[in-house]
Amino acid sequence: MARVSGQQDGEGQLKALGEAVRARRLALGLSQEALADAAGLDRSHMGKIERGERNVTLLNVLRIAAALNASAANVLREAGL
Amino acid sequence: MARVSGQQDGEGQLKALGEAVRARRLALGLSQEALADAAGLDRSHMGKIERGERNVTLLNVLRIAAALNASAANVLREAGL
Repeated sequence: MARVSGQQDGEGQLKALGEAVRARRLALGLSQEALADAAGLDRSHMGKIERGERNVTLLNVLRIAAALNASAANVLREAGL
Repeated sequence: MARVSGQQDGEGQLKALGEAVRARRLALGLSQEALADAAGLDRSHMGKIERGERNVTLLNVLRIAAALNASAANVLREAGL
């Protein structure tokens, strides 16, 4: 699909965040369930976030980043956002 | 109020984002209304985000950052998040 600029659309941006979360999670050797529990999120919600299927709120990004021992700014930077 | 660690609570985190957005907006000489329009957000919603009264979604953080000529990662970093 054509893109006017290098910017991703919203769906692509959510996928990029999910991929960055997943990469950090795997690097820490955490299961998706363990990360969900550590972040205090519902496990199915966590799965949808990793797949880019949810427009996650800032507070949940912060909870996920904290559970990944990262700042939210760094997670977004790794996602190219 | 006592804090267990240096981490802010959710309310403080949302306020920190709002302050970072406001600082960048003022540095650009933009009114809150102009920023809301540039980001495609409702003006009253934009005001609530700047005051930390809304748990903003990631896509809206990205829209606001783009309207501020910044990456979302940099805006969050400036907010200490």
